[in-house]
Amino acid sequence: MTLKKVIIIGGGFGGLSAAKVIDDSLSDVTVIDKTNHHLFQPLLYQVATAALSPADIAIPIRSILNNKRNTKVILDEAIDIDKSKKIVKLKNSELAYDYLIVAPGSRHSYFGKNEWEKYAPGLKTLTDAVTIREKIINSLELAEKENDQLNKIKYLTFVIVGGGPTGVELAGAIAEIAKKTIIKDYKNFKPDDAKIILIEAFPRVLNTFEEKISERAEKYLSAMGVQIIKNTKVEDVNSSGVQTTNGFIITSNVIWAAGNQASPLIQKLNIPTDRAGRIFVNDDCSIPDYPEIFVIGDASQLKDDHGKILPGTAPVAMQQGRFVAKIINAELAGKPRTKFKYIDKGNLATIGKAKAVGEIKGFKIYGLIAWLMWSSIHIFYLIGFKNRFRVMIEWIWYYITNKRGTRLIVGK
Amino acid sequence: MTLKKVIIIGGGFGGLSAAKVIDDSLSDVTVIDKTNHHLFQPLLYQVATAALSPADIAIPIRSILNNKRNTKVILDEAIDIDKSKKIVKLKNSELAYDYLIVAPGSRHSYFGKNEWEKYAPGLKTLTDAVTIREKIINSLELAEKENDQLNKIKYLTFVIVGGGPTGVELAGAIAEIAKKTIIKDYKNFKPDDAKIILIEAFPRVLNTFEEKISERAEKYLSAMGVQIIKNTKVEDVNSSGVQTTNGFIITSNVIWAAGNQASPLIQKLNIPTDRAGRIFVNDDCSIPDYPEIFVIGDASQLKDDHGKILPGTAPVAMQQGRFVAKIINAELAGKPRTKFKYIDKGNLATIGKAKAVGEIKGFKIYGLIAWLMWSSIHIFYLIGFKNRFRVMIEWIWYYITNKRGTRLIVGK
Repeated sequence: MTLKKVIIIGGGFGGLSAAKVIDDSLSDVTVIDKTNHHLFQPLLYQVATAALSPADIAIPIRSILNNKRNTKVILDEAIDIDKSKKIVKLKNSELAYDYLIVAPGSRHSYFGKNEWEKYAPGLKTLTDAVTIREKIINSLELAEKENDQLNKIKYLTFVIVGGGPTGVELAGAIAEIAKKTIIKDYKNFKPDDAKIILIEAFPRVLNTFEEKISERAEKYLSAMGVQIIKNTKVEDVNSSGVQTTNGFIITSNVIWAAGNQASPLIQKLNIPTDRAGRIFVNDDCSIPDYPEIFVIGDASQLKDDHGKILPGTAPVAMQQGRFVAKIINAELAGKPRTKFKYIDKGNLATIGKAKAVGEIKGFKIYGLIAWLMWSSIHIFYLIGFKNRFRVMIEWIWYYITNKRGTRLIVGK
Repeated sequence: MTLKKVIIIGGGFGGLSAAKVIDDSLSDVTVIDKTNHHLFQPLLYQVATAALSPADIAIPIRSILNNKRNTKVILDEAIDIDKSKKIVKLKNSELAYDYLIVAPGSRHSYFGKNEWEKYAPGLKTLTDAVTIREKIINSLELAEKENDQLNKIKYLTFVIVGGGPTGVELAGAIAEIAKKTIIKDYKNFKPDDAKIILIEAFPRVLNTFEEKISERAEKYLSAMGVQIIKNTKVEDVNSSGVQTTNGFIITSNVIWAAGNQASPLIQKLNIPTDRAGRIFVNDDCSIPDYPEIFVIGDASQLKDDHGKILPGTAPVAMQQGRFVAKIINAELAGKPRTKFKYIDKGNLATIGKAKAVGEIKGFKIYGLIAWLMWSSIHIFYLIGFKNRFRVMIEWIWYYITNKRGTRLIVGK
């Protein structure tokens, strides 16, 4: 008997969860990813802000799956999908499938203004994180040797576009760096010279959370010296700074934390998508007319029982990954499909040292207790005992000494 | 009273040791480096072979010197030195000095064949180390998806050129990766498919050590599956492999560990150098006719009392840095100069897990005991308590589990 071929595109939260649950004694499994590692994206902003090293939050997909005897991992890029021939095209080869799980994730989106990316990098990959880290440290170095006051202000102004969880976390962490933890190493400027500005188009930050939580987050950020500019849109980003609907900000440091766009691979499926490029999937996460193709994670759009679109978070992707793997296992054993149901375990965002906000099962939590919960959940979900240990040590170390560990400029 | 101006070019072992010892209440001190970090080069091969993260062996120069109130750190490149005007030219500015300590280090040298660098990267900086690490892991990934047997061999053959300490350490570590620690994650090739070849022009590896030590090192390497080709020179390196005086080796992985050339900045001093570009310095490390200019570390050439050239190692650079700083302190207090005397504390090279060779004060040591000594010395000399702790944890972890921690491809 030849086994059915299952291909999983993407080794993120969705794809990896599926790969772990699929029974590879019933099928030949192949996982394809452009990078060699699974990335723990919720902590990516800590790499970007010199708190953690890349290796602390990334682990080779190959080593995670090395106990699966019939699961292959391939470092390659899926560039096309032929639905009728059931083939995935890679850069120099192609692979046939019986089941296909598409979990390619999303990139940040500049709403059609891709030329902004050069000046306002986003944060999705390790490369992005290291780029942002080097930009921040380099700006402080440039400010240190700059004598012209206007240029110094430009180097010491940090603008974060987008007040969602990533933007809020970045703004808090950059405020800590520039105003507290490393400022004492510099002799040519003072903490007050550094400006951290968070721009949000909506009337409040964290607008997917409850209003009370947004208020608290804004209070924390303000106390840390972050200036929050709300109801404001970005109209242009260039080498001099950011043009907003509320005026121009001179800066050489813009970070983009606004808007996502599903991976371009999704377009190859030729299925209707929403404005963010996400495919409207059936309630078993398959796509219309092709029950053997599933799209999961933040490249798909699915609504819960109340008509609310599921967020593009790790828990949704993981639950979908496991769900789809179980469907395939069941179908190979001749059993029927079920319907995906998301179990919401809550939502947290951290804002600087020992402060966080969030809601868990209807309860709002704030401050140290929220931060402790945030920390333990993130350590728990990190893959690999050593990574958990290392990250815990880094956090304890930082908590005690206020020193950030990875302030390196490695690139040329 | 205006203080005398001391400029230190380079934040490596030599420059940093000088900066720590110089009394900056007697002088204005400026440290200039192209990178923002001091790098613990003796462990660089462990970053290149996925055992350690960049942040484990590098620390911002700024933070090391932040308790020195009158010492400035500048991230910039010294591109010229005007000896008569006593000025150092940076990229966009210039600085005057009364004393100048030149400690720019060296790069690897291709004996005039710079076109080889593209195919045979060397190992001097963090960027080099990360490049080599990604090349090694990428080759294993390519071998995994390659079906053509000849291409597979090409990807799985690793050639290290140069059997000095760096070459020996790299060969041992790559043998461990390719034949032992991560091979079980790959399903399309076996440990024996991986070939590690060490090419040495002399009749033995580690030729600056005693013969007996070379023999032992070769024995260890052979036992680990490293093929040692001696009395052999490299004639060409290209995309297909390496042409040696003993035949052609097909490979896509060549690492260069042969030959050093002092930093090009040294040429700007217009003083006679040896073939490796090192300046012949006076016995107080100053250069002829310019007692206010010192050149230290592996950009200088100095002989000991027996007429033997001091090696380009960290201990020599550190001792010279401290020595020169003391000369300046003394001279500013009106005291005379002394003569540099190197105290040789021994020499160790490590070869894979829990094995090393070396000589300490005339005694030869081998095996586990040498490795324990090597480990403790390297941890002791690492800067920063946290780095010591982290590296120790990584080594213990690796010793127990045989898992390498940082097998990431971060670049695109």
